[in-house]
Amino acid sequence: MNILVLSSGTRSLLVRYLKASNPEGLIVCADNSPYAPALYEGDLQYITPRIDAPGYLDAILNICARHSINGVFSLIDPELVVLAKNADAFLKLGVKPMISDLTAVEACFDKFAFAEMLLDADVPTVKTYRSLAFALHDLSTGRLAFPLMIKPVKGSASIRLKKVEDVSALNAAWRDAEDLIIQEWVDMTEYGVDCYVDFESGELVDMFIKQKILMRAGETDKAVSSHNPIVEKTVKSMLERLPVKFKGAIDVDLFSDGDRCLISEINPRFGGGYPHAYACGVNFFSHYLQNLAGASNKQYSGLQYEPHVYMMKYNDVCMKRHVEL
Amino acid sequence: MNILVLSSGTRSLLVRYLKASNPEGLIVCADNSPYAPALYEGDLQYITPRIDAPGYLDAILNICARHSINGVFSLIDPELVVLAKNADAFLKLGVKPMISDLTAVEACFDKFAFAEMLLDADVPTVKTYRSLAFALHDLSTGRLAFPLMIKPVKGSASIRLKKVEDVSALNAAWRDAEDLIIQEWVDMTEYGVDCYVDFESGELVDMFIKQKILMRAGETDKAVSSHNPIVEKTVKSMLERLPVKFKGAIDVDLFSDGDRCLISEINPRFGGGYPHAYACGVNFFSHYLQNLAGASNKQYSGLQYEPHVYMMKYNDVCMKRHVEL
Repeated sequence: MNILVLSSGTRSLLVRYLKASNPEGLIVCADNSPYAPALYEGDLQYITPRIDAPGYLDAILNICARHSINGVFSLIDPELVVLAKNADAFLKLGVKPMISDLTAVEACFDKFAFAEMLLDADVPTVKTYRSLAFALHDLSTGRLAFPLMIKPVKGSASIRLKKVEDVSALNAAWRDAEDLIIQEWVDMTEYGVDCYVDFESGELVDMFIKQKILMRAGETDKAVSSHNPIVEKTVKSMLERLPVKFKGAIDVDLFSDGDRCLISEINPRFGGGYPHAYACGVNFFSHYLQNLAGASNKQYSGLQYEPHVYMMKYNDVCMKRHVEL
Repeated sequence: MNILVLSSGTRSLLVRYLKASNPEGLIVCADNSPYAPALYEGDLQYITPRIDAPGYLDAILNICARHSINGVFSLIDPELVVLAKNADAFLKLGVKPMISDLTAVEACFDKFAFAEMLLDADVPTVKTYRSLAFALHDLSTGRLAFPLMIKPVKGSASIRLKKVEDVSALNAAWRDAEDLIIQEWVDMTEYGVDCYVDFESGELVDMFIKQKILMRAGETDKAVSSHNPIVEKTVKSMLERLPVKFKGAIDVDLFSDGDRCLISEINPRFGGGYPHAYACGVNFFSHYLQNLAGASNKQYSGLQYEPHVYMMKYNDVCMKRHVEL
């Protein structure tokens, strides 16, 4: 299968693993910068316009046509909406994009819409407020308690996240910015769950649970594979209950204290921690290749990897002469 | 040669390169956490107490004695003072630590003392104030102008760094914290320079200049090798003029606009960007092995590597089962 990886950035390992899983196929990598090391793990590199530039979509559709691309996916959030909106344009060319439905992608990026969707589906999540008045009301009745978290309704990693300890800090933080949400402060263990949802059947196929040990610059730096049964059950039942349709690799963040389990967010793409799953033998690329061939994968049959395997990230370097860029 | 790498942390590539440069020798890695991936690049791993715990020094001296260690160095700043203060205890065991003199180490960690030392030696540096009154005075006479940078007098990366644009912001930032310095805001290209200073002769041996392209979480993420003559000249003359003695690998940060060159800081250890130098053929480990054998290296004879070679960092993962930690 010929596969195009968009906004490949620094996800060199992911491209390397894809190449290893698909040795006969062509891997084309694209990015708007020649300094994206993952570009050079592919068989071919394209420097594209920025995703918000006019002509971007045509540029990537042209790459698809030129190289008889079968599948395409992106590694950055802002591009997921572009793929979801234009899925038909790819399908017309015979390319199956690994992308969830637009309603799913949009719900994941608005933290308040996401929390509402989970609440409606009776999936436990972090208490989330879009209105200061409602939060103050729940504080007064004891339904909510300090500390709280203030963060942008859209935004990733821990950017502009603020912990507030009392009403005056809450008021001040609220006044200083806009497009914020208020969330309860959750003091539980963090988990990241990689899921693969079948393109054809729409069913969960595979799952990998990792307990986070250390975060650095908004990314999981160290983690350990886990067979946590409550996490497994919660994620499985969430995917059954949610009204939106995910497709392919998704990354679920959640909190658990062993008894309860609160879904925090979903990134409808390969998460930054996917190499942990792959190194433990959980190969989403093989499921993807199966889907690209028009066949569905076997339905989920439990966790298939070894628990207690630790992943520790470190920097490697990609070196290129100027003429090779 | 048998070499002990202290606080090896996530510097896996550095340990790998050291091992490759010294295949006959034993490489022992130490860290206070079993989740430090670089530990597993060595031939042997030790989990040590924290460097500020009582018994730390004895623990590492014991490792030196047990494995007939010839050389030792650390990869984190707080440990450099420990090594510099206790250099004699290592030397008594026949171990040559790669560490600059205590006066040099201490001058590098106090940003104000460092700026004063450079000023006294007539080395161009960033204008630095320890007193709000002096800064306000220079602002009033036009010797200094906004924007300014406020940062802790001790501290690394960009932690707690604040840009201020006017007097009221300056006053507010100054009131809110202590142990701060005020620096001019420098809008020039940033460079990192890896130098090796001979243990025996005290002379500069080797130098690698990289122009920084992108910083991420206080670290150089992308850079390009450079033969910038002003940078080369400035660093060379700085090392000749400074009254303190450096030894082994040091990492110099500076700014240049092509005409001027301002020294920003020195880390008297292997910098985080050293793999760039090594990948370009600049091997400080071979100089170190020469010094450990009691011989001095040839004096500096100009830049020896290819310019315009780009380095782009990406994450690799180290995987370990629980029993292997």
